[in-house]
Amino acid sequence: MTKADIITRRVESLRAWMRKEDIAAYIFPSTDPHSGEYVPDRWKGREWISGFNGSAGTAVVTLTSAGLWTDSRYWLAAEEQTAGTPFEVIRCGRNVATAEELAAWIESHEAERGSEAVVGLDARSNTTESVEEMKEQLALRGFSIVDVDPLVDLWEDRPEVPQAPIEIQPLELAGRSVAQKLDDIRGELRRNRADALVVSQLDEIAWALNLRGTDVHCTPVFVSYLLVLPKKVLLYVNRKKVTPEVAAYLRENGIVVHPYDTLEADLVDSQVDGVSLKSLAIQFDPATTNYSICDALAAWNAKVVRKTSPIMALRAIKNEAEIAGFRRAMLKDGVAMVKFLRWLEEQSQVLPEAGSMELTELSVDRKLTSLRAEQEGFRDISFDTIAGYGAHAAIVHYEATPETDVPLKPQGLLLLDSGAQYQDGTTDITRTIALGPLTEQERRDYTLVLKGHIRLATAVFPKGTTGTQLDVLARYAMWQDHKNYGHGTGHGVGSYLSVHEGPHQFRMNWMPAQLQAGMTVTIEPGIYIAGSHGARTENTMLIVPDSEDGWMRMEPLTLCPIDTTPIVWEMMAPDEIEYLNNYHAHVREALLPLLHDEADREFLKLKTERH
Amino acid sequence: MTKADIITRRVESLRAWMRKEDIAAYIFPSTDPHSGEYVPDRWKGREWISGFNGSAGTAVVTLTSAGLWTDSRYWLAAEEQTAGTPFEVIRCGRNVATAEELAAWIESHEAERGSEAVVGLDARSNTTESVEEMKEQLALRGFSIVDVDPLVDLWEDRPEVPQAPIEIQPLELAGRSVAQKLDDIRGELRRNRADALVVSQLDEIAWALNLRGTDVHCTPVFVSYLLVLPKKVLLYVNRKKVTPEVAAYLRENGIVVHPYDTLEADLVDSQVDGVSLKSLAIQFDPATTNYSICDALAAWNAKVVRKTSPIMALRAIKNEAEIAGFRRAMLKDGVAMVKFLRWLEEQSQVLPEAGSMELTELSVDRKLTSLRAEQEGFRDISFDTIAGYGAHAAIVHYEATPETDVPLKPQGLLLLDSGAQYQDGTTDITRTIALGPLTEQERRDYTLVLKGHIRLATAVFPKGTTGTQLDVLARYAMWQDHKNYGHGTGHGVGSYLSVHEGPHQFRMNWMPAQLQAGMTVTIEPGIYIAGSHGARTENTMLIVPDSEDGWMRMEPLTLCPIDTTPIVWEMMAPDEIEYLNNYHAHVREALLPLLHDEADREFLKLKTERH
Repeated sequence: MTKADIITRRVESLRAWMRKEDIAAYIFPSTDPHSGEYVPDRWKGREWISGFNGSAGTAVVTLTSAGLWTDSRYWLAAEEQTAGTPFEVIRCGRNVATAEELAAWIESHEAERGSEAVVGLDARSNTTESVEEMKEQLALRGFSIVDVDPLVDLWEDRPEVPQAPIEIQPLELAGRSVAQKLDDIRGELRRNRADALVVSQLDEIAWALNLRGTDVHCTPVFVSYLLVLPKKVLLYVNRKKVTPEVAAYLRENGIVVHPYDTLEADLVDSQVDGVSLKSLAIQFDPATTNYSICDALAAWNAKVVRKTSPIMALRAIKNEAEIAGFRRAMLKDGVAMVKFLRWLEEQSQVLPEAGSMELTELSVDRKLTSLRAEQEGFRDISFDTIAGYGAHAAIVHYEATPETDVPLKPQGLLLLDSGAQYQDGTTDITRTIALGPLTEQERRDYTLVLKGHIRLATAVFPKGTTGTQLDVLARYAMWQDHKNYGHGTGHGVGSYLSVHEGPHQFRMNWMPAQLQAGMTVTIEPGIYIAGSHGARTENTMLIVPDSEDGWMRMEPLTLCPIDTTPIVWEMMAPDEIEYLNNYHAHVREALLPLLHDEADREFLKLKTERH
Repeated sequence: MTKADIITRRVESLRAWMRKEDIAAYIFPSTDPHSGEYVPDRWKGREWISGFNGSAGTAVVTLTSAGLWTDSRYWLAAEEQTAGTPFEVIRCGRNVATAEELAAWIESHEAERGSEAVVGLDARSNTTESVEEMKEQLALRGFSIVDVDPLVDLWEDRPEVPQAPIEIQPLELAGRSVAQKLDDIRGELRRNRADALVVSQLDEIAWALNLRGTDVHCTPVFVSYLLVLPKKVLLYVNRKKVTPEVAAYLRENGIVVHPYDTLEADLVDSQVDGVSLKSLAIQFDPATTNYSICDALAAWNAKVVRKTSPIMALRAIKNEAEIAGFRRAMLKDGVAMVKFLRWLEEQSQVLPEAGSMELTELSVDRKLTSLRAEQEGFRDISFDTIAGYGAHAAIVHYEATPETDVPLKPQGLLLLDSGAQYQDGTTDITRTIALGPLTEQERRDYTLVLKGHIRLATAVFPKGTTGTQLDVLARYAMWQDHKNYGHGTGHGVGSYLSVHEGPHQFRMNWMPAQLQAGMTVTIEPGIYIAGSHGARTENTMLIVPDSEDGWMRMEPLTLCPIDTTPIVWEMMAPDEIEYLNNYHAHVREALLPLLHDEADREFLKLKTERH
């Protein structure tokens, strides 16, 4: 049976179920109950039903039609992966379809509406906000919503909820004890006039409890829910994951363990571990908390406070232990990067005349990962490496696969966006590397990106400044040349946690979170010329005080030379060249003592020479 | 009787009335029924009751206390002006007190609360938004609101609603006919699913009808309301203001005139000039429309659409006739400014050793206004001139009075922010002028301001960019030096209308209005060192296309040399110097043909020399 046949059968079995249950359409989102960036296999329902494995997209099945929405990154892949299936690919401007788009499509594609047409979805796998929007948009068109998960029966061999053991993140790395963090969280709750907090984002739970896991791709978290009550904390987690050591640690910290899948029932009961919830104002974040939790609280009309989780803001400001950990992680990452860059340069010089090196995007990725893996405390990469050569570098979220992989040639630009999870900290770095001769346009674009990077990196700014207010500094130079990029300029980075952290960002759309000393943030402007080339230069930065009266600046945490060979020096301002020289001196000073191979040392000295 | 005695008596008469009416507190805002920047005398109730004549502030009187809130600009003036009266000055961070501040103060200062404590205000003189906020904040504290205007009886010799005649702004200056504008407005209403529009902002009415007036200080508008219905337009205006020519013009354009003070009654009746409003969705802007109008519509539960007026966005994009008018106005203004600057320089050289010139801030203001008044089509200044010398230049909204006026000396910086209303267009320009030797700090601060001005002025930006996103370009250089300014960086400028126009602005707080080709906007960064000096450099700019695919840039409309003597040239980047040189070449080329006095010509050539 071909893959298309399997998908077609799955759709048929779903439709049979829908007929029986009198459901007009069923929606499969990209999200899971914890609203994280990467979804454990158990919740890849959209992939199961459609065969489409991209990271973003929405599938909807009606009795006669099937639609799959995804954004431009995945248009071609989605067409290929759904060929021969009932799915029609709908090209979508955003990551996922809006509620309005879905509802309008369902209205026009749903053929057999009864008097009470019903659309099904799994409330656990959709956020509160998204379900409320869907409800509103569907209601306008005469549909109601039912919470039901047909995959429980239909999906044979459905993966379990991950069972991997939980690990303790030592206090010397976390910097603040669980008791201190719970105090901080409860303090924020009081300020919001809330008494309790439901936490469903896995990296928030890991941060609050100084625990880590391996349940999710590239992110050291474990599947669970956390319920913070005024005098009690409950961790809803599969007991198999709780080692004796972790069990003792949780007991010490006064944290009660309940089975993972009992949270909703406890909330519906308004009674948790002997504590009544009736008199409590319960806070949750509708943007990240699944609708099943919201619904459980609505069952008895609980007093709720809908607000961004206080953990997000607390976590964003790194403490001294975390900052020290970042610095150690960056040293290791820098050593791996320098070794990698030297290796790459040597490889690119092996056969300069033969037209093609013996390297491909994937082999470069493997080499870099293996060099990182040699570093102490390495646990994983922090996201899927983007190794894009030539025209592939112009595809913003390109991820090489055996099908797309291309050999590198001793010319043009290789864009390499990568990072690692060390137990000390998480790294995220992009370097664009000249593999040989470049076109004038490649050199100019590379230089515009670098100018933007430096202009933002040198900004001094007062208390109260937001990332949106600074973002243009990274774009000013390239805008003069009518070039721009369609992604944000930077994001927070977790402390051995998610590589993408909020609440602050550098981006054009309004982000009200203010920048504060102690926050990590990336600077990663880029230029992407479709079919030709791409360039991006990214460092992870730390926001530090520049004065005692609230002025701040950033200092680079990332330690790795920036390729100077593509630079058009006439385009660089004197202060930009000075910044680059100072950065390179700093990188050399930091990494040289850690490099013991003379060739590596010479390479670093050469690549950090003053200009 | 002293002024303080008069105020005390007024407060006593108000309290007598409050006792009779059983009112616990009465609120006097800074606003009038039309929510404009300048308030006609009739609605200066806050000044009448308190004696405080600043442009922003709130007065509240209870039976036993009286409070006056104003911002830092006016703290000292308010203390002086209310000395010996029942008013206590409350130093306020913003322009006016927030609803929460007022309500909390009333709660703690209102001594004789009955079972149903009532706070009075005049719904006509407060915006819908502000009354709704007050209502909410007062309700939390057990107060209700009553709409009543005691000044009708208490204020003897209260000025009338202004009666000045209306004038027609010729089509060759306005560029678009009333019929075209009404079509545009109705098109926007349809997009908002609204059928009718209530307009209360005077500059919106003047724009829509191509009419002007002289009712308001510095702003060529006339007191009125406009009601746009699907097939009818009603102008609520005092008939005395309608000359036979204007009456004929209104008839031609199908606009029906109703008496000014009958709008609310018509709205309450849900019947206007034979048209029923019952089936119409009526749009108004709660941020600018007075609460009396909102209340009239609420009386019969009208279907309302609360949204920013469509006129604001339509008016912001100037048409070709308006742009041509701006260019003519700027030529005239430039000629006046050059003559003024030459005169000022000559005066400052008359007695260089005597320590003090025979000039003061006020005499400089008079001279400049008289030179502008010589220009064809001059109608008025566009706002009260800010002529601040030395430490006065550090007071952002300084306006010299006979009491504060100081003689100029041949040293230091004179900050001069001024503008004119010509029938062709409105001008707004700030120049900071060295009157002689400067301190190093004055020179550095002047240069940082100029760098910020130029960085923003040279920005190229894509479709969709907002003023908030660009604002930092004007601050980047001074932020490096830990200097900042507490005001916005720029605002739209009207076409022979208000000098401050929305919806777009350059400012740090989020302004969602996108910049579009055809908009005017000022660039006016500043540095203010309290007790020492201030510098600001402002040009009015026009946003123009930089490509056919949506990229934009700005070009300066203002034509006047920027003083180069304070510049620390080593601080200037080559492209910044180039911009200044090009600007000066442009100014010279534009103004030289219009200057007939050889001394003026030589002065201009000297002041626009290449550096």
